[in-house]
Amino acid sequence: MSLHKHTPRIVTRTHELRLALKGVREGGRTIGFVPTMGALHEGHLSLVRAARAECDTVVVSIYVNPTQFGQGEDFDRYPRDLDADTQRLSDIGVDWVFAPTDTEVYPPGFDTWVQPGKMAASWEGKCRPGHFRGVATVVLKLFSMVGPDRAYFGEKDYQQLLVIRRMVSDFNLPLTICPHPTVREPDGLAMSSRNAYLSPEHRRQARVLSQSLFWASEQVASGEQSAEKLVTGMRQIIAKAPDAAIDYVAIVDPDTLVPVSTVTTPVQSLLAVRIGGVRLIDNARLIPSASP
Amino acid sequence: MSLHKHTPRIVTRTHELRLALKGVREGGRTIGFVPTMGALHEGHLSLVRAARAECDTVVVSIYVNPTQFGQGEDFDRYPRDLDADTQRLSDIGVDWVFAPTDTEVYPPGFDTWVQPGKMAASWEGKCRPGHFRGVATVVLKLFSMVGPDRAYFGEKDYQQLLVIRRMVSDFNLPLTICPHPTVREPDGLAMSSRNAYLSPEHRRQARVLSQSLFWASEQVASGEQSAEKLVTGMRQIIAKAPDAAIDYVAIVDPDTLVPVSTVTTPVQSLLAVRIGGVRLIDNARLIPSASP
Repeated sequence: MSLHKHTPRIVTRTHELRLALKGVREGGRTIGFVPTMGALHEGHLSLVRAARAECDTVVVSIYVNPTQFGQGEDFDRYPRDLDADTQRLSDIGVDWVFAPTDTEVYPPGFDTWVQPGKMAASWEGKCRPGHFRGVATVVLKLFSMVGPDRAYFGEKDYQQLLVIRRMVSDFNLPLTICPHPTVREPDGLAMSSRNAYLSPEHRRQARVLSQSLFWASEQVASGEQSAEKLVTGMRQIIAKAPDAAIDYVAIVDPDTLVPVSTVTTPVQSLLAVRIGGVRLIDNARLIPSASP
Repeated sequence: MSLHKHTPRIVTRTHELRLALKGVREGGRTIGFVPTMGALHEGHLSLVRAARAECDTVVVSIYVNPTQFGQGEDFDRYPRDLDADTQRLSDIGVDWVFAPTDTEVYPPGFDTWVQPGKMAASWEGKCRPGHFRGVATVVLKLFSMVGPDRAYFGEKDYQQLLVIRRMVSDFNLPLTICPHPTVREPDGLAMSSRNAYLSPEHRRQARVLSQSLFWASEQVASGEQSAEKLVTGMRQIIAKAPDAAIDYVAIVDPDTLVPVSTVTTPVQSLLAVRIGGVRLIDNARLIPSASP
């Protein structure tokens, strides 16, 4: 177990990281891993704290992965501040920050991809073609580089979590995926690095996302079973924000992401909404009161 | 280091294998891995002997992978005899034979694939659509199950070797790929499990494959630089077998598999020929005498 309060050591090369972790592994100590794109917020930090509590050594990667961004998306303007991120991690006791360059991750000639299946085809996969291929590929690569025993993912990116879980199972990767609940701002907005793009006015309007989920959650707890009524009500709440444009609002099976029409067991509500051009996603588990 | 002369222990479940190898890894001992589809011949055994010589623990997998066979190919009739294979391995000192079932490798819901790039598009990839996707996927899975330090592949499947190497590099897999030369019958025919399909007459005709490669090798060593002339000559030699049908005969760059027209540096000759309906492949490195 390393000392808990210190500035993490930063490595940028895979072979340095491997060398650093070789002794950890051979000593039978466990490695906890939190893959991030930086711009760290309380959501990330809750994952890092869980890793710190459960593992001997904690590795956080900070890498804005170009292959998961589509043309015209926000790759270029995605917030990058390694010093600030490292500072945020220093009180938690992270051992290693892995911050590779693009050339380190995708050297010339790179040409093999992870192709996720059905789980990646709907919702975010439909709105952002190629997104999950990029996510799954870089996550597999990071897993190979780090060799973690446990890897931590936020439930805020719910479909991503399922795509990664499917990959880990399908590829027999020898690690455990540890999901953690979405962390929210006091007014309910799910924490996201992209919230920083919102103007004060759009930040205010963005509350409709979580408001619609909380409303649906209450409705289902009170006995509402019609997915159609739930979606209609959620859309009405979101429409109260003048600059909101809905990509999707859905009530789905929590394991398959296939839409359900009648809510008699726990379901997942997924949504993606652009507020003044900033694309935000959120989701919640909706649990019927009489649910088993 | 285990005793060298013993019957290998057979495991069929991934978790059993992991448990068996856990102590090996934690003790800092190395694992050598030879993935096979069984029907073991001297080509396989040469790989196993190399693994035995270079690693502390040797694992051989025997699994006829359905996802690398196309419709109408020989998946159903591919030779399967686990007892005979285990017997062949018993004198070499193999520690573990991993012989999983289809359900163990591809449980219901399996839906994530490795998609190899350009390296897999030509030659075998063109003749057998989806073949290398199946190969790369099962090899990644086996690597995850076994966790080898070194994995051994025959040069007989030359394009497969390059596809796997590309995958290992692109996915940052923490292992070394060890290629070994093609082992040949006394008359030159490359050893292959599929040679067993040949009738005595077709077995005799099959000598034209290696004959054409040896001829090309001599030509290049003697100064021939025209790939066109080499391919023409090779096709003429192959055409001497009355029941031969050529899928391709090519002179290519050994790293990219792109055809070359003038042979001034070492090149690879690749061929695929059906003899009486039995599809055989072979290849050789052709080295100009004045080559650097």
